[in-house]
Amino acid sequence: MKKLFALALLVGLGATQANDPMLRVRQFRQAHEHELLTEFEQLVAIPNVAADTANLRRTALFVQGMMQRRGISARLLAAPTPGVPPVVFGEVRTPGATRTVIFYAHYDGQPVNPAQWREGLQPFQPQLATGPLDRGGQLAARPAAGQPLNPDWRLYARSASDDKAGVMAILAGYQALAASKLKAKVNVKFFFEGEEERGSPHLGEILARHKALLASDLWVICDGPVHQSGRKQVVFGARGDVNMSLKVYGPRRPLHSGHYGNWAPNPALALARLLASMTDSTGRVRVAGFYDDVTPLSAAEKTALAQVPNLDETIRQELGFARSYGTGQSLVELLNQPSLNINGMQSANVGAQAANVIPTVASAVLDLRLVLGNDAQRQVQKVVRHIERQGYHVVAAEPTAAERTQYPLLVRVNAEKGENAQRTRLDLPIARQVVAAVQTTTPDRIVQLPSMGGTLPLGVFERELGAHTVTVPVANYDNNQHAENENIRLGNLWDGIETMAAIMLMK
Amino acid sequence: MKKLFALALLVGLGATQANDPMLRVRQFRQAHEHELLTEFEQLVAIPNVAADTANLRRTALFVQGMMQRRGISARLLAAPTPGVPPVVFGEVRTPGATRTVIFYAHYDGQPVNPAQWREGLQPFQPQLATGPLDRGGQLAARPAAGQPLNPDWRLYARSASDDKAGVMAILAGYQALAASKLKAKVNVKFFFEGEEERGSPHLGEILARHKALLASDLWVICDGPVHQSGRKQVVFGARGDVNMSLKVYGPRRPLHSGHYGNWAPNPALALARLLASMTDSTGRVRVAGFYDDVTPLSAAEKTALAQVPNLDETIRQELGFARSYGTGQSLVELLNQPSLNINGMQSANVGAQAANVIPTVASAVLDLRLVLGNDAQRQVQKVVRHIERQGYHVVAAEPTAAERTQYPLLVRVNAEKGENAQRTRLDLPIARQVVAAVQTTTPDRIVQLPSMGGTLPLGVFERELGAHTVTVPVANYDNNQHAENENIRLGNLWDGIETMAAIMLMK
Repeated sequence: MKKLFALALLVGLGATQANDPMLRVRQFRQAHEHELLTEFEQLVAIPNVAADTANLRRTALFVQGMMQRRGISARLLAAPTPGVPPVVFGEVRTPGATRTVIFYAHYDGQPVNPAQWREGLQPFQPQLATGPLDRGGQLAARPAAGQPLNPDWRLYARSASDDKAGVMAILAGYQALAASKLKAKVNVKFFFEGEEERGSPHLGEILARHKALLASDLWVICDGPVHQSGRKQVVFGARGDVNMSLKVYGPRRPLHSGHYGNWAPNPALALARLLASMTDSTGRVRVAGFYDDVTPLSAAEKTALAQVPNLDETIRQELGFARSYGTGQSLVELLNQPSLNINGMQSANVGAQAANVIPTVASAVLDLRLVLGNDAQRQVQKVVRHIERQGYHVVAAEPTAAERTQYPLLVRVNAEKGENAQRTRLDLPIARQVVAAVQTTTPDRIVQLPSMGGTLPLGVFERELGAHTVTVPVANYDNNQHAENENIRLGNLWDGIETMAAIMLMK
Repeated sequence: MKKLFALALLVGLGATQANDPMLRVRQFRQAHEHELLTEFEQLVAIPNVAADTANLRRTALFVQGMMQRRGISARLLAAPTPGVPPVVFGEVRTPGATRTVIFYAHYDGQPVNPAQWREGLQPFQPQLATGPLDRGGQLAARPAAGQPLNPDWRLYARSASDDKAGVMAILAGYQALAASKLKAKVNVKFFFEGEEERGSPHLGEILARHKALLASDLWVICDGPVHQSGRKQVVFGARGDVNMSLKVYGPRRPLHSGHYGNWAPNPALALARLLASMTDSTGRVRVAGFYDDVTPLSAAEKTALAQVPNLDETIRQELGFARSYGTGQSLVELLNQPSLNINGMQSANVGAQAANVIPTVASAVLDLRLVLGNDAQRQVQKVVRHIERQGYHVVAAEPTAAERTQYPLLVRVNAEKGENAQRTRLDLPIARQVVAAVQTTTPDRIVQLPSMGGTLPLGVFERELGAHTVTVPVANYDNNQHAENENIRLGNLWDGIETMAAIMLMK
């Protein structure tokens, strides 16, 4: 007993019996962490950006292979629209189980600009480091097989967190149960999507086509980061999102800024004025009606928010800026409001390539996050009307020569379809069981969040299938998700395996 | 006689005698235009951006070779500072001449971003076209040797106009005189600089070191475009210029715009607000004191400006925008005021590489053009004070972590040394003789401009040598100078040869 007790202390789990299923899951992982990491490195080494359809398909086939190696019968579900990256689907029935849980993750990743990756990293060349590279971590070779891996080490690569970590945690969680002769208590289905970072434009038609196959009591969405405190989270919803691109026009060809500066209009200046008109210095959006149709939080949701640990000051210090937006609200409060973010902005060149020109165009990409009550296209229209109120003529395609000489302020605006926000009720019984299951994996009280700040294609499950969703993330919060130098903390990947296994075992 | 008269009509020169020197210069060019074009293509094929020191040196050596082939003894003048691209200098003494004219051009070019060059062009792969590619011109192979070249054709390459055309016009002008047994009336010196596009930071020390060698009565600066009407110009001054770079800071690492959007401050938005504060919608600069120390134009200068043909409406139509800056002033009036231009602006990515992030930094490059009375550093300081008045803490180097967490609005500002404006008196006798000489090459009344909108390193000649300057440009105005798809109209290169030869022959 003494030895087992010591082991339990060592693993910090609070499990005091050798047959504690979570302890057995952990022991399996510890015994196989090198193999799991090798497989994960192979997974993240396959490029998975939307534009690279051939490699997206390779990624899907690799995921199918991962499932087959684990004894899961896996297949690709094609969308009715040709050319769409397939869903990788699998199913394991549990004799006697009355409920079915579908585990969702996505295998596609955000676009990359390899030139922006720092410390010699490349998006699809996974690289270990002894910690976060921007806070003292160093690139490092993997310890020899048999040596334990330090859970604070990071693996750097596009999608290491978002969301190949989700794919890995779900499949390794299932594998750990099977290898430990632990039986899932529910029927388990697996659903890995390939278009999430594009806003899941064909997910609805895939769900509609495979309605019977996808019958379930709950979707568990494994995506996003755990709480900044390191505590595990169960998240009941997500903000929506819709991207808009703006392109403002100047002279038809680039002009020498000396021979024409002061006379020919500068589109970068016009764009700066337009963007500046959209918010005030606290980040409050000045677009008319922007906050109008927000559904208020319920009393239970307000209570849950109040219980979320507030680490804002610590995070602000770590992120290295002096003042957050808002007028005193916390991060979680502000994430429950719609937002307007500038994702990127460009006109001609800066740095070594800068030249003394009046640029021909200036572009920006906006990202509107939405909360319950907002509609993506309605929100876009509010911004379009705001642009028109600044005196702009708005077009949806490249303007003609006649339009360019007719309208002093001319902007091309294109918006994506977007994804609305979704929230599952905090008191939904099966969701309460997920909370309880995740709580078995950790002595720390888990965080219950009414909505994450990020976006997941949650509404479509409700619309197409009438299904419920909860989100159970695994990544570290400081993962550079969506940006250069994306990474996963190994400990988060290992914890994620336990989390997913616990949900499969939920009562 | 009849035959000669017909030839004179054919060349459109108004010259009615076979011994008209300008006619002989033209006949020389017509007989050798294929060879001249071949040599010019070789010249522009050598990369000449500041960062590429090896190729800049190759360019200098090629220019030296061009001079030697024309019997001009040529040498490289090194700056006292090591590593500076050399000046290529040459001299031809004219027996009996009492005056010396130095012809200046520069062989370096503006930075290039090859990705921005359109129609398959590359900056250093010269390519002929039947006209401007943005208005119906087509890429074309050169006609067979012996076939005349259409003067409306263009040659596309970096520095085809700015300013290798100047180098070529000066040397071919001299060559045409020598081959036609025409004697220059003045001592001729040649001075080809290699750092003009960087703001000529070492020109002063080169002039100071070689003061005796560079003694002259006048510098003729061959750079910039002729008037938009196609008329030749003599320009008596240039605006000054100083570049500033601004870099605004957000979170230390890029953040997911969902998980932090509304809370973490966005540097692109801050930069947009800062830039928007600098001008109004008419392009008028709102920086306090920006227009304060402008030296008014003299009566003679005002008269000269009033005589400049006004093609503003035609140019605006061709450039494809609806409204020029200002409140009714003409292009030449506005070019006699200081300006603030955004050369480039960037934060994270737009287009296919855009991702849903809060960027870490946002950058802009500004270009302040200066008129007589302005001082480059004083003008920079006005902008810096304006930035501080918007609440910014201004630093000159990458901010420390402590600065980033201390100042809500933090900007790094770096300014170059800059170049002040310069104007030569319109009634300077030797300048009047240049005007008269250029007028002999064309029946069209030439334009006399008190100042060009662009910048040349003119002040340094006065400071270091007490020298006078006039500028005699050759390039077409629609040359995409400083930008992608730079080009020269062949007819402008040919006209430039005659212009330079005429000045060497001036009475």
